[in-house]
Amino acid sequence: MQKSDVGLIGLAVMGQNLALNINDKGYSISVYNRSDSKTREFISGPANKRENLLATYSIEDFVASLEKPRKIILMVKAGEVVDIFIEKLLPHLEEGDIIIDGGNSYFKDTIRRTKELEKKSILFIGMGVSGGEEGARKGPSLMPGGNPQAWPQVKNILTKIAAKTPDGTACCNWVGNDGAGHYVKMVHNGIEYGDMQLIAETYHIMKDILALSYEEMADTFEKWNKGILNSYLIEITADILRHKDTDGNPLVEKILDAAGQKGTGKWTGIEALDKGVPVSLIVEAVFARAISSFKEERELASTKLSTNRQIYRGDKQHLLDSLEAALIAAKATSYAQGFMLLREAAKAYDWQLDFANIATLWRAGCIIRSSFLDSIIEAYKESPDIPNMLLAPYFANLITKKQDQWREVIATAVQHAIPVPALSSALSFLDSYKSNRLPANLIQAQRDYFGAHTYERTDKPRGQFFHTNWTGEGGNTTSGAYNA
Amino acid sequence: MQKSDVGLIGLAVMGQNLALNINDKGYSISVYNRSDSKTREFISGPANKRENLLATYSIEDFVASLEKPRKIILMVKAGEVVDIFIEKLLPHLEEGDIIIDGGNSYFKDTIRRTKELEKKSILFIGMGVSGGEEGARKGPSLMPGGNPQAWPQVKNILTKIAAKTPDGTACCNWVGNDGAGHYVKMVHNGIEYGDMQLIAETYHIMKDILALSYEEMADTFEKWNKGILNSYLIEITADILRHKDTDGNPLVEKILDAAGQKGTGKWTGIEALDKGVPVSLIVEAVFARAISSFKEERELASTKLSTNRQIYRGDKQHLLDSLEAALIAAKATSYAQGFMLLREAAKAYDWQLDFANIATLWRAGCIIRSSFLDSIIEAYKESPDIPNMLLAPYFANLITKKQDQWREVIATAVQHAIPVPALSSALSFLDSYKSNRLPANLIQAQRDYFGAHTYERTDKPRGQFFHTNWTGEGGNTTSGAYNA
Repeated sequence: MQKSDVGLIGLAVMGQNLALNINDKGYSISVYNRSDSKTREFISGPANKRENLLATYSIEDFVASLEKPRKIILMVKAGEVVDIFIEKLLPHLEEGDIIIDGGNSYFKDTIRRTKELEKKSILFIGMGVSGGEEGARKGPSLMPGGNPQAWPQVKNILTKIAAKTPDGTACCNWVGNDGAGHYVKMVHNGIEYGDMQLIAETYHIMKDILALSYEEMADTFEKWNKGILNSYLIEITADILRHKDTDGNPLVEKILDAAGQKGTGKWTGIEALDKGVPVSLIVEAVFARAISSFKEERELASTKLSTNRQIYRGDKQHLLDSLEAALIAAKATSYAQGFMLLREAAKAYDWQLDFANIATLWRAGCIIRSSFLDSIIEAYKESPDIPNMLLAPYFANLITKKQDQWREVIATAVQHAIPVPALSSALSFLDSYKSNRLPANLIQAQRDYFGAHTYERTDKPRGQFFHTNWTGEGGNTTSGAYNA
Repeated sequence: MQKSDVGLIGLAVMGQNLALNINDKGYSISVYNRSDSKTREFISGPANKRENLLATYSIEDFVASLEKPRKIILMVKAGEVVDIFIEKLLPHLEEGDIIIDGGNSYFKDTIRRTKELEKKSILFIGMGVSGGEEGARKGPSLMPGGNPQAWPQVKNILTKIAAKTPDGTACCNWVGNDGAGHYVKMVHNGIEYGDMQLIAETYHIMKDILALSYEEMADTFEKWNKGILNSYLIEITADILRHKDTDGNPLVEKILDAAGQKGTGKWTGIEALDKGVPVSLIVEAVFARAISSFKEERELASTKLSTNRQIYRGDKQHLLDSLEAALIAAKATSYAQGFMLLREAAKAYDWQLDFANIATLWRAGCIIRSSFLDSIIEAYKESPDIPNMLLAPYFANLITKKQDQWREVIATAVQHAIPVPALSSALSFLDSYKSNRLPANLIQAQRDYFGAHTYERTDKPRGQFFHTNWTGEGGNTTSGAYNA
């Protein structure tokens, strides 16, 4: 019997679509699912009458059906389930076999799994997969990291099934050792949270300050999609705003305003806090979803805390143009924050991250795909060691040009009581980042005042610490046990 | 030989001052420090000629000098050092002895230590101590949690050494089981980060928009200290702004604007993200310190990203009044966020937290002490089960009255390129929290569009989930493995 080129475990929608995609590209594939019924549904449904697609109903048969070294893609729920399947597979595997985890695993789990499996001579890859159902089916963005010995053996298959940028480059390339692929996927998802929140805020302003109709809003996003903002999320936003419910009214109006989340945005925020990188926009986006979920409390609060909303008296098209500029500038800032985090992660976890490569992986196939990423790719190709994307000439110029409109949008939203957590946190970040003098000197003085934490001086070299006896009491002892 | 009432390990400044405080209140105390020299310095210096204060130079002698059940306060560096001292002490302790960790320990460590020591019949308390050097010496805020059996035995001592509110209540009371005390201390420190950042932002606006002199700024804070903002941090800010360097110029101007941090603010943010509670102001304050630490990068960025700063043409006193209002409203919002986190923590960790009690602990002795806390105490005494502090009549009224001035401050700062991350994130939170309709419906539509994540509807009961086939392709399969 002919052996399959690849095996895939886990036939939820992403697994099914990825299996079909692999099979479409000319590879034979064996599939397995924990419950047989799902496998049967797949085989009699979407995979009906396919050649070189083999359904198996036991781990033994599944593994036995694979060409050596075996290449097994796990498309199962992140967390414990991944470990369970690895445990189930191990007794049947041989040295040099490859396991690819295509779920949204936490990068620290991927670091652990890569190391544990390396000891058993099994090559592990933790691969970020983005693009949702459609991406998996037609070409996802793939972010593989893990054991680098595995890469040459799976490169061809993964590159073939991945999305392609407009110039034909595959959105799949090796990211780095152990957890690097899943880390980059995590940051991708964080950025996705940010992009979605930014769009939601502009929609909110269009709806409640400008009182645009759904058709007008859809037209606006469609227009924006032809400019710098050209992207999948802007495109589907226009689609969504036009979509009618069965009664002919906009469906989106009927959707409950309580956003769900599944953890990767939150992970990005926790990593940012842990590494001391100010990824404020993504965190505000995560918090915005959290606030939205307090639906009943918000309804109560809306009766107790009111604002006399002013009517907008400015020119509609003027504000719409400013909104587009604000969205562009805030988006650039958000991506800059994301890459700042990647830079610190590279140091902390000892990864060699190529930022132009990472931006290329996101260029197509995934949820945040956009032509905007071309500018990032270019910026990092020109100066790979630039400390921040915003300092690249293109982005410095872009931000400088758009900032006045951005400021106008925030001021208008704030005066009209429309929450703009992402738009405004990004502006505060920018205004902080471009300040050669921040008020943190006062914070240092306070910390020294109450906790003897010491401070550095502008007229002395860095690394020299001073303490002032501010009150004339207390002495010159510096702080030991107390942390603030 | 007479046995000591209490023992204390760790003679950094906080430990020294706490030992002197305990001794002042009429308790005999034994002290021990890892390095003998520090103990000798203490005994020949601040503790010179004290009665009932015994220096010991070995753990054995230290433990042997204590009255049973022994009460041992650890004032050592949080982390591994606490475990090391517990290990050193254990062989010399007996059933029912009490260890109190007064460092800034991570609450999860305290949960673990309480449980581990309980098995050994040692009663463990994790106690938040706030107030810096001065507080430790004259009366700190104490937030004890842990094994409740220990409380009756240390209540008198701890209550005596603690700060007292203006009406004479001790700022020390039992917080809750295992990690509750250190958790509340963590949130205290997070709020402290927020308060300090808010003050820094108002200082920045006074300095760079209003171009006030240091004396004018100090006068303003001094004036504010007589109103709703009356607090330790406002008081010391006025002091700091008046403080002259040896050359007669304001010292704070010479202090480097790169703020340090030691982790408790970051922990609060991580907890907030983990529990899905939008504690945005504290996180922005943590990030503001992080941005400040990128000093060299900021200097570079200031040359590449510029803003044509407008000159402020409004009335100075008018903006100063608005600033005060903004600070009050943002501060109330920050505390509300902190108490939201405590509410979720109580559920998650099974603690019975009394919010009026917690506000009382912070009323004096600690860094965030303020008369403002009286209003919080009152609000929670009136309605202990209110879902949010901001819904209490006093705060709802306060916020409603101050919001227009708050909005004006943000709009002005944003137009003048002065970063206001804390002031503006709190306003966005408020505007979100009091919205019965947020744009999260669009986010849910997007998630359903690209990932089949389903949504709820406004015209259907909660808990019913719907999926739309937005594109006419792809089918009705809902998402399994893919998380966004």
